[in-house]
Amino acid sequence: MVSNILRSILLGALVLSSAQLWATAPTSGLLLNSVEAKGISQQVAELPLLAKSVEAMAEGLNAFMSIDMDVPVPRDAGGGYTHERHKKNGQAIYEAATLYQVTGEQRYADFAVALLLRYADLYPKIGPHPEHKHQAPGKLFWQILNDAVWLVYVIQGYDQLQDVLTPEQKELIARNLLNPYVKYLSVDSSETFNKVHNHGTWAAAAVGMTGLVLGNQEYVDIALKGSAKDGHSGFLKQIEALFSPDGYYTEGPYYQRYALMPFVVFARALDRVQPQWDIFKYRDGVLLKAIYACINLSYNNLFFPLNDAIKDKGLDTIELVYGVDIAYALTKDKGLLSVAANQQQVIVSGDGLLVAQAIAAQQQQPFDYSSMLFRDGANGDEGGVAVLRSDDAKSALVVKAAGQGMGHGHFDRLGWLYYDHGNEIVSDYGAARYLNVVTKRGGVYLPENNTWAKQSIAHNTLVVDERSHFNGKLGKASESSAKVSVFSDKLNAVSVVEANAYPGVSFERTMGLIQTALLDSPLVLDLMTIRSSTKHQYDLPLHYAGQLTYISEQPKVALNTMETLGKKHGYQHLWKKGWLPVNGSAAQVTWLKGNRFYSLNTLLPKDSQILFAELGANDPEFNLRRENALVLRQTGRKDTHFVSVLESHGEYNGVREYTKQPTSQVRGLEHHVDKDLSLVLVELDGGARIVVAKADSVDPDQQHTLAFNGKRYQWRGHLAIFEESSNDGK
Amino acid sequence: MVSNILRSILLGALVLSSAQLWATAPTSGLLLNSVEAKGISQQVAELPLLAKSVEAMAEGLNAFMSIDMDVPVPRDAGGGYTHERHKKNGQAIYEAATLYQVTGEQRYADFAVALLLRYADLYPKIGPHPEHKHQAPGKLFWQILNDAVWLVYVIQGYDQLQDVLTPEQKELIARNLLNPYVKYLSVDSSETFNKVHNHGTWAAAAVGMTGLVLGNQEYVDIALKGSAKDGHSGFLKQIEALFSPDGYYTEGPYYQRYALMPFVVFARALDRVQPQWDIFKYRDGVLLKAIYACINLSYNNLFFPLNDAIKDKGLDTIELVYGVDIAYALTKDKGLLSVAANQQQVIVSGDGLLVAQAIAAQQQQPFDYSSMLFRDGANGDEGGVAVLRSDDAKSALVVKAAGQGMGHGHFDRLGWLYYDHGNEIVSDYGAARYLNVVTKRGGVYLPENNTWAKQSIAHNTLVVDERSHFNGKLGKASESSAKVSVFSDKLNAVSVVEANAYPGVSFERTMGLIQTALLDSPLVLDLMTIRSSTKHQYDLPLHYAGQLTYISEQPKVALNTMETLGKKHGYQHLWKKGWLPVNGSAAQVTWLKGNRFYSLNTLLPKDSQILFAELGANDPEFNLRRENALVLRQTGRKDTHFVSVLESHGEYNGVREYTKQPTSQVRGLEHHVDKDLSLVLVELDGGARIVVAKADSVDPDQQHTLAFNGKRYQWRGHLAIFEESSNDGK
Repeated sequence: MVSNILRSILLGALVLSSAQLWATAPTSGLLLNSVEAKGISQQVAELPLLAKSVEAMAEGLNAFMSIDMDVPVPRDAGGGYTHERHKKNGQAIYEAATLYQVTGEQRYADFAVALLLRYADLYPKIGPHPEHKHQAPGKLFWQILNDAVWLVYVIQGYDQLQDVLTPEQKELIARNLLNPYVKYLSVDSSETFNKVHNHGTWAAAAVGMTGLVLGNQEYVDIALKGSAKDGHSGFLKQIEALFSPDGYYTEGPYYQRYALMPFVVFARALDRVQPQWDIFKYRDGVLLKAIYACINLSYNNLFFPLNDAIKDKGLDTIELVYGVDIAYALTKDKGLLSVAANQQQVIVSGDGLLVAQAIAAQQQQPFDYSSMLFRDGANGDEGGVAVLRSDDAKSALVVKAAGQGMGHGHFDRLGWLYYDHGNEIVSDYGAARYLNVVTKRGGVYLPENNTWAKQSIAHNTLVVDERSHFNGKLGKASESSAKVSVFSDKLNAVSVVEANAYPGVSFERTMGLIQTALLDSPLVLDLMTIRSSTKHQYDLPLHYAGQLTYISEQPKVALNTMETLGKKHGYQHLWKKGWLPVNGSAAQVTWLKGNRFYSLNTLLPKDSQILFAELGANDPEFNLRRENALVLRQTGRKDTHFVSVLESHGEYNGVREYTKQPTSQVRGLEHHVDKDLSLVLVELDGGARIVVAKADSVDPDQQHTLAFNGKRYQWRGHLAIFEESSNDGK
Repeated sequence: MVSNILRSILLGALVLSSAQLWATAPTSGLLLNSVEAKGISQQVAELPLLAKSVEAMAEGLNAFMSIDMDVPVPRDAGGGYTHERHKKNGQAIYEAATLYQVTGEQRYADFAVALLLRYADLYPKIGPHPEHKHQAPGKLFWQILNDAVWLVYVIQGYDQLQDVLTPEQKELIARNLLNPYVKYLSVDSSETFNKVHNHGTWAAAAVGMTGLVLGNQEYVDIALKGSAKDGHSGFLKQIEALFSPDGYYTEGPYYQRYALMPFVVFARALDRVQPQWDIFKYRDGVLLKAIYACINLSYNNLFFPLNDAIKDKGLDTIELVYGVDIAYALTKDKGLLSVAANQQQVIVSGDGLLVAQAIAAQQQQPFDYSSMLFRDGANGDEGGVAVLRSDDAKSALVVKAAGQGMGHGHFDRLGWLYYDHGNEIVSDYGAARYLNVVTKRGGVYLPENNTWAKQSIAHNTLVVDERSHFNGKLGKASESSAKVSVFSDKLNAVSVVEANAYPGVSFERTMGLIQTALLDSPLVLDLMTIRSSTKHQYDLPLHYAGQLTYISEQPKVALNTMETLGKKHGYQHLWKKGWLPVNGSAAQVTWLKGNRFYSLNTLLPKDSQILFAELGANDPEFNLRRENALVLRQTGRKDTHFVSVLESHGEYNGVREYTKQPTSQVRGLEHHVDKDLSLVLVELDGGARIVVAKADSVDPDQQHTLAFNGKRYQWRGHLAIFEESSNDGK
């Protein structure tokens, strides 16, 4: 079965190869040159991923070409007709020009040229957009950001049309559209252009790529070094400032994906046309690191939903398709091919061709997901995000101890997430927003994003006295970051500290994903130490995904009426479903998610409680998802600890009607503290034990010795993990 | 990559084919004869589905063979050690004997023979099981049912061992095990044996299959016709009584699947050994109809969860693997192959071989899911279950108007379910039970199964005065059934009636899955007419799956405290989240599920309400899932109607960041009643209309005319559907 577009490509290739219509030397080709286009044309029928991508592009464009061409005078704000139409027109110029190169079909070239000429006609006649509000105005769009994005696509289209445009047309388009467009972006809107910010990156990419195509080095230079060409702003500065040395972007993976696009597209174009910049080696190769960071900050193809994040987004977004194709072209890392295969799409470009060829040649290998620390901050000294993975990559533990992440940051210092066997087990709400769903307030961030999603109680981290970190104030939170004191990929553990979120209270958390032959899945260790000279209520929420199947004691439960857990800082959104008093003992809560059971074993001092909460109170528009949380609560305490281990165990199989190990294999949990040393002792069914030894000191060379219950534990450095078989003991 | 088991099979096949170890004429072979076994052996490497099935069998059995053989004296009740061990031993005899035939490996034969001989040693020494309680006792197991199941497997194993057992061994096994076992099942436990009930079917299968293998016609005859051989009981009678003429089993698809196993296994064995019975043609081929009914009573491979049902169960259960393989062997229906391919498994049998061959030869075609009525009751006169599907099979509407379904039945007369684009949209809770999860009361039906899952409010049907149908009494409910007055696969609509659930109240429901070019998905019509001479409160719940995205007016919402919707009959389990007064107008509620939007448009008289409810109140063990419902409420009414249409529309795409048509295209809903005729008028955006005309009469030939708003509607029979373009009107 050969689709129409494939047939047309094949036909085109025959005609072209016999008639030698294409020049044999490639034209410049930002992301696609004529040799590559010919390669696509000749090989597409044998490259399923590429065929699918070309077909998808052709299908969308053919539909668009079947309606009347319209280049309206700009009038509407975002979402309105002229806004959407100019977006689509820009995309269409790019796609039609690309399909012309690939298929040789003249109608695509004619369409793209006609549309370009309409813009060359319109552009001189319009001024700043009438609907601009607080942002810098564009001309085609209400904000200059959209104008920059438009040009990034259109200049790629223009690039593909160079062999069909007449010299007169080229001159006209340059004079009426491209040059004044660049001037508007870089001179008239110089403030945005020189911002070290994502908006500035789009502007730099638009101007720089236009310079590469027109052969205008001035454009390239100001794009790279700012209007003043002094390097205080521009693309190079942005590369330096907007990523940490590990390629982490402070707003988190959701926005990192978004920010990535202009970086990789412009960098790749620059690399192809002016390789002398060696841009992908710039700053120790941080752009490639940023692409890899995006991939590594995901599980099961979805990004970790840190800070404001829509949870649907993952590795199959278009930004990552660009990122992965480009990274593969540069590195030939076969692990990237498995990511690309999951994307089910390649860019119709030279790099996309390479990826499709390699996948068709079955070169793909599993991507190497491993435990990593992503430092935050331009200098890497503003905390970080630790990702701990099991050797089989089935489990991932994420600990966030980073900077605030600007306006999209959440008050979630030292919070964590946990994934296992394909599912989110300990979750982050992400953002309270239904992207583009107009019936949900037009698709913008909802009020509950502030009242719930950003609040500390919405995360798996400490809340003191029912107030969010920094009292929920962004300014204060932005002044400091959490700290990663120890990260060990060998032990698969991390220690993190937060000293500023609450006046007079500091808290440290040690988390590990402990892999042992004693259990078939890794054990999550969670040890939090809190220091304060005054008494507080300490709440440690755990947002679990799944259905409760076991609680070690019967909690009290709200039966006929239910009330909220509190009044503000997010507590007003939680229903108090139940509460279990705990008095200095270990408690166990098990839930079922997917076909696995998950048991939290936790040790609480006397007069503590486990609260069972459900999201959804004070939600008049039913905006919040109904999710569940446990809240471990200690009341009237100064210094204290929270000690828990989370076990993944067993199997539920409803189809074949069996259930294995539905109860935790942890039968005892102890915490022994002796001055600056401590032990967490986890006793398993059968008597074997896992013992985590910890020193307050983070000196990796310091020797420690601690005796407990007739045994001596000796270790070097901050942390150690001991396994004791059931024969070792007593 | 060839796995170990495959390598061993291939090796065995070479040895065997050269040495001519196998007889060339097949031995009897209940479900597998020596020619088929040889076929499997020779072809398995080229038949991926068969290879996978053989490998899975070998993997499980090898693990079992690596532990010490044990045939314990029966002691434990269900779930206990001796119970589980005897189950596994029986399975192992069958699997080892089968693998011996397929691989030629002597160790499998040796193992199976040794285990069989152990049972021949044990059986004479044991009496009725010590742990029997209310059921008829078995010997190996606490209930005779398990003993029968055990023999169904073991006799198949014995059958495969006939060429390795010595005459002395055969004599011993027959004397000590098989004959006394049959006697215990058929004579000592004659009450169960002669029951026209699922337990009787397992006993008949065990005895009959043993008769086929031993060549004992007496066993075959009593299995088919009961102890007295008069046909008042036995397998033939069970075929007559337990299925409706359409192959529907009154307990519903979940239990139909379970009941199916002994029917199809025994029938297929009988058909192969004594084809003269022509068993699959018996009673107009009802056994094949029953297999097809199971498939047709599913969506997206999962059974419709009518009555007590675990929602994980579907077409990939082992019972359906048997059913589909056997049905394919008999019919060669290529649509069954696509079901088999989804099962990812075949039986290691002659029929399984045929299926695997056909799939490898790419003969599979989509299964033909179409609209069907499954009548209930042995005579087909006890109502039924209507399944209405869209032509593209993306949507399915299920309307239940059947008998009570015995002890596993729910009080759900005239309830419905709706599936669309792969998801459950309007749902049935199924059973409140975590199958085999011991921490949930041992995995049995939970208290909430009675207090919630069976109650009428837990279903999408009418509840009068907050009491369940028949006041929740099984005995009363079992005396009558609902009625299907009209089923039209042409109109894709059904009218059903319930006259007994409430004294003095009868209700009729007309539902349709209306396919029209005016909309891209079918429109669900729901028209309920209630007749009563006294005033009542009428509640019509709609259990929706998804996230609310739009309500036509702002409801009042429980903010800081929340109460239950009522006190009993399931209402005590619903939290009252919100309530929207409606006064004689149409209201609209939209939710998002998967990537589609669903809008209920409903017309309510004055002083009505839409209640927003969430499951989970009075649930001290957190047994209930947190699901959501709307409840349409009319108060203080005698005769009345509920008129609604449910539209599936639009698309949400979070990855590509677009949303299409998030609001309903229904802009008006009217209901016009004129004596015994009525119209439901659905006006769409743009002015086109869908008009459903209905007569109270169900006479298919009667002509009707009704004028409304200057238009005349003329139709013949109970129902008609008119489409009016926007130009037709006024």
